[in-house]
Amino acid sequence: MSDLTGGAVEEALADARRKYRNWGRWGPDDALGTLNYIDDAKRGAAAALARTGRAFSLAVELGRTGPGSGHRGSGNPVHTMLDSGVEGVAGVEGVAGVAGIAGAQGYPHGFGDVDDVVFMPLRSGTHWDGLGHVFDNALGWNGRRRAEVVTAAGDRVTGAERQAAGFVSRGVLLDVGRAAGGGSLRDGHAITEDQLRATIRAQGPSAQVVRGDIVLVRTGQLARCRGIGDWAGFASGPAPGLSFASLAWLHGSEIAAIATDTFAVEVRPHEFDAPCVSPLHQIAIPNIGLFLGEMFDLEALAADCAADGVYEFLLIAAGLPIAGGVGLPVNPIAIK
Amino acid sequence: MSDLTGGAVEEALADARRKYRNWGRWGPDDALGTLNYIDDAKRGAAAALARTGRAFSLAVELGRTGPGSGHRGSGNPVHTMLDSGVEGVAGVEGVAGVAGIAGAQGYPHGFGDVDDVVFMPLRSGTHWDGLGHVFDNALGWNGRRRAEVVTAAGDRVTGAERQAAGFVSRGVLLDVGRAAGGGSLRDGHAITEDQLRATIRAQGPSAQVVRGDIVLVRTGQLARCRGIGDWAGFASGPAPGLSFASLAWLHGSEIAAIATDTFAVEVRPHEFDAPCVSPLHQIAIPNIGLFLGEMFDLEALAADCAADGVYEFLLIAAGLPIAGGVGLPVNPIAIK
Amino acid sequence: MSDLTGGAVEEALADARRKYRNWGRWGPDDALGTLNYIDDAKRGAAAALARTGRAFSLAVELGRTGPGSGHRGSGNPVHTMLDSGVEGVAGVEGVAGVAGIAGAQGYPHGFGDVDDVVFMPLRSGTHWDGLGHVFDNALGWNGRRRAEVVTAAGDRVTGAERQAAGFVSRGVLLDVGRAAGGGSLRDGHAITEDQLRATIRAQGPSAQVVRGDIVLVRTGQLARCRGIGDWAGFASGPAPGLSFASLAWLHGSEIAAIATDTFAVEVRPHEFDAPCVSPLHQIAIPNIGLFLGEMFDLEALAADCAADGVYEFLLIAAGLPIAGGVGLPVNPIAIK
Amino acid sequence: MSDLTGGAVEEALADARRKYRNWGRWGPDDALGTLNYIDDAKRGAAAALARTGRAFSLAVELGRTGPGSGHRGSGNPVHTMLDSGVEGVAGVEGVAGVAGIAGAQGYPHGFGDVDDVVFMPLRSGTHWDGLGHVFDNALGWNGRRRAEVVTAAGDRVTGAERQAAGFVSRGVLLDVGRAAGGGSLRDGHAITEDQLRATIRAQGPSAQVVRGDIVLVRTGQLARCRGIGDWAGFASGPAPGLSFASLAWLHGSEIAAIATDTFAVEVRPHEFDAPCVSPLHQIAIPNIGLFLGEMFDLEALAADCAADGVYEFLLIAAGLPIAGGVGLPVNPIAIK
Repeated sequence: MSDLTGGAVEEALADARRKYRNWGRWGPDDALGTLNYIDDAKRGAAAALARTGRAFSLAVELGRTGPGSGHRGSGNPVHTMLDSGVEGVAGVEGVAGVAGIAGAQGYPHGFGDVDDVVFMPLRSGTHWDGLGHVFDNALGWNGRRRAEVVTAAGDRVTGAERQAAGFVSRGVLLDVGRAAGGGSLRDGHAITEDQLRATIRAQGPSAQVVRGDIVLVRTGQLARCRGIGDWAGFASGPAPGLSFASLAWLHGSEIAAIATDTFAVEVRPHEFDAPCVSPLHQIAIPNIGLFLGEMFDLEALAADCAADGVYEFLLIAAGLPIAGGVGLPVNPIAIK
Repeated sequence: MSDLTGGAVEEALADARRKYRNWGRWGPDDALGTLNYIDDAKRGAAAALARTGRAFSLAVELGRTGPGSGHRGSGNPVHTMLDSGVEGVAGVEGVAGVAGIAGAQGYPHGFGDVDDVVFMPLRSGTHWDGLGHVFDNALGWNGRRRAEVVTAAGDRVTGAERQAAGFVSRGVLLDVGRAAGGGSLRDGHAITEDQLRATIRAQGPSAQVVRGDIVLVRTGQLARCRGIGDWAGFASGPAPGLSFASLAWLHGSEIAAIATDTFAVEVRPHEFDAPCVSPLHQIAIPNIGLFLGEMFDLEALAADCAADGVYEFLLIAAGLPIAGGVGLPVNPIAIK
Repeated sequence: MSDLTGGAVEEALADARRKYRNWGRWGPDDALGTLNYIDDAKRGAAAALARTGRAFSLAVELGRTGPGSGHRGSGNPVHTMLDSGVEGVAGVEGVAGVAGIAGAQGYPHGFGDVDDVVFMPLRSGTHWDGLGHVFDNALGWNGRRRAEVVTAAGDRVTGAERQAAGFVSRGVLLDVGRAAGGGSLRDGHAITEDQLRATIRAQGPSAQVVRGDIVLVRTGQLARCRGIGDWAGFASGPAPGLSFASLAWLHGSEIAAIATDTFAVEVRPHEFDAPCVSPLHQIAIPNIGLFLGEMFDLEALAADCAADGVYEFLLIAAGLPIAGGVGLPVNPIAIK
Repeated sequence: MSDLTGGAVEEALADARRKYRNWGRWGPDDALGTLNYIDDAKRGAAAALARTGRAFSLAVELGRTGPGSGHRGSGNPVHTMLDSGVEGVAGVEGVAGVAGIAGAQGYPHGFGDVDDVVFMPLRSGTHWDGLGHVFDNALGWNGRRRAEVVTAAGDRVTGAERQAAGFVSRGVLLDVGRAAGGGSLRDGHAITEDQLRATIRAQGPSAQVVRGDIVLVRTGQLARCRGIGDWAGFASGPAPGLSFASLAWLHGSEIAAIATDTFAVEVRPHEFDAPCVSPLHQIAIPNIGLFLGEMFDLEALAADCAADGVYEFLLIAAGLPIAGGVGLPVNPIAIK
């Protein structure tokens, strides 16, 4: 992107704000952003795409060995048991040589149960970035000031509980990694609008993207990192992802949301010469009001789409409605 | 239930085990239990029920003032920010009279972001009980011993990650509370098979329950407690719920899962004269292999069903795939 | 306190601010407040009080059944194991009838280990309130504005790490509960300066309070609540504690810190007719710069002091230096 | 250690068990291990060492950028605010251009407060390993079986709450790093009994180690890693530390506890040719009953000792009494 790498960051950001800003489009109190593109008719039509009943979960496992980064205290979820089954069997049946250990629960009639807890950064697995996750010059979605939006009590305006039923629509998979021929894009590769369009053409009519769609872009990076068992680069190193220049398409296509199989949706490192932090996020979230999904596991779905040539489906990707959450952990389900 | 309240608990449990146990039905390594009743054809037919595109989230908000109990260290989720928006605005714009407070993030070009974490008992909001949640005489689903199933590392056999795409099917709402005439069943009311069948008859053909369905039973208790702002009784006091005697129907109808708008699905207190802990759980989970859903918010869906007389829909209720989780937090989506 | 209960809250607060405010006393960047009254000579003299070597821990156990309240998401600590010993013995020795469960760690030469984590509100057990815990009209210790002090990153100015070696001094126990004759003060009883002085006289010369001392006031409430196994009233109901009028003594005696065996140091309900929140905290912490200690378990120490008539000792009560912490969990040690 | 590196691990472990095992020495229900070497007389004599009143905290800051490793889900503590001061000032004073943001607490008379929580692996900062942390062939301290000791509910026999007042004694600093001439030992350097004795000789009479002492060994590694801002090697790479052969001295000297300024006390990698995990831990904790302290920050204390030539002091290192804890977070205080 020679025009970008050579250009001034400030000018590019200013230009993007001017062109793509959706503030006020859905009223001053809106908490749905581009999810407003989805309506009953859209959902009804999307449901009609679920013809065979084949269902795919697009979530990565939330475990101790997952892709969570260490950024700002974040990491993988820590899941622990308040009690476990082993104590029970020991108590009821006796561990060899150990009389009456205390773990036995002592309920009547052989009842036993166990419970668990999790400590989880909300962005540690498959998730949507909430509209309050990123600010542009201290202004968030719809032009609200940061201080109005996210306090210590969480996102008061656009928290996760406001989009509880929002992520139901037609899903379209754009398997850029496969279409590019190698199965996985190289780290640092910037996906342009041209490449998105070429992928759509290659995949055929079912891959046409229209208003209100939730677009899933497969780069192949997640599978590549999982294959080699090394998440370090995944979370913080170079990665394939959307070019800053793709914002024109992200805005103009009027999609409801976009997700990738990478840690941060946009290409890393960014495409500018000057220091800059997640410029695509800076425009997409607070200005367009676009929901970005990260760490979607698209492997099984992509294989199925490659096999039958159908790249559209019903997608339900409703995040956990944690009050005030700016990250929305989700187990997205695609049904073809 | 005179035969129950007068009878011996042990005999009732033994009888239920003998009649309803599904061990081995889907092979020795099964992790899906009654979700096996769902197949592609079932999901395909379920999707066809989503005609109008109206979508409903059935999850309660996960907040500090929610219905979480204090049992064994459990409580409501604690959601906190790793940073918040207020610091940012203070840093960028200046808080009145405060020069340069340190909260400002200092990113170039006006970029700013915030992150959050949650500490959450997995059963603190809308959730499915995992198959490893309850044991019967130290044996879990499929007859596996507790020690084989749930260790400190979580549920190794039937953990939440194994049902990642399992909860997609036809949903049927049985609005027992509304059908009974009062909107909400009184605490302690036991819902029998007869009452379930009467509700189905009253609701009409769309409420017929068939193999593989996910049944949602509305008692009205959740709305009643929320209305008075008092969750204490909700979590631990008397509650309406399924009678122990309803196990015959839960087993014989070959449903895939059942959820209610109560804390524990089954009636509280239980119906036996002798001490006993959650007897319906003790049979349903480890013996039938049935998934029980708790704290589903059925109010908006029930109002819609009452309005159009259609009680069936596409239901997607995929829990968060926490590795080894015995509780599955979920944001269930019903689409009509 | 007829003058208080009849008087205006605002006037009482204004009067207390005017009389007791220590702002600037130890320089503009001070993070020690009244701990500044302790110096090497004070600590050296305090150490000389440890003659017999008898040592007492003044901390309550941090467990699931402790005195933690539910205020603002707080509660008792939740301590869980990342793995436990039961899996190990099962793995190495075999649980009866269970071949090779996966819990076994598989280290060579019989090595095994376990680890644990805790999720803990910092005020859930024995602790000091940090200087950043309470603000008076948005101003904290030394007159700093809230926004300068506590951000989402914690207390930047007076966080727990700044007092890491600060809580070492002469300790003096004032056993008001025992001196009053009943062993435990009734809930709602306000301890006045007169009663503190009467207790000192009754206890004798070793109970004289001088500059730099850390004063421990025993009301008997903690033992009373623990005795009946009911912490609900302890955390939020009426409690014995310091009268608002005792602030004159708290300020004038130049003590370094004061702790009680109650949840909140000051009497509950407060002594004013009008609405008011923790008025003693409001003056003591941000204005005097005084550290308040809560839920100190003084029973064993008090029994020892009653037995030998010696009410002074070396006290080491160094809180955990959590960076930015506004609560300082502590295991205080008294040595006589 | 040619006899070790060439020898068989099994034989060395068996030999050490035979020579150093203290099981039964203090009765079958003991929870104090080598802390039993400390008695009132010892504590009284230790207190007499606190002559000048100079006090030192030996704890590392518990923050997001600290030395916590990622082993088994562990990491640094995550400290977050339930509310912060910035909202308050915004609410009371108004953030520029923002009317009435909700963060304002709305208490009367200008009262305001904030609270915080921490999620903390118990071994993530300065801590003692509990006696239940390590097992030798599934047997723990005093020969108890793992299943008897550590269940999902924590350490039932030797949990942190049992040593609440145990860590008060004479402390002796052995500054091996300084005595060796370079300030910091190289990674992989094994400290032998000879080197400990040489350090004692070099430091003079105040460094003599006797029964019941708590010994602090400074290698210089913590300061070195902190200096270069790189904790990765600190937690998991090669490190200086005690030789396996030093167990003879650890046992025979009858010390109460030993701590170092490293992540794991013992030298890393270990000194054997064959695979082996923390062999010194395997003998010291479950067999000797010796408490090992890790990540003690000895820099300020060591500088003071080097300056005045006095290497003995009163040490109070009482861990947080988390019920069942196998790690004891601590802020140790040395007073000279």
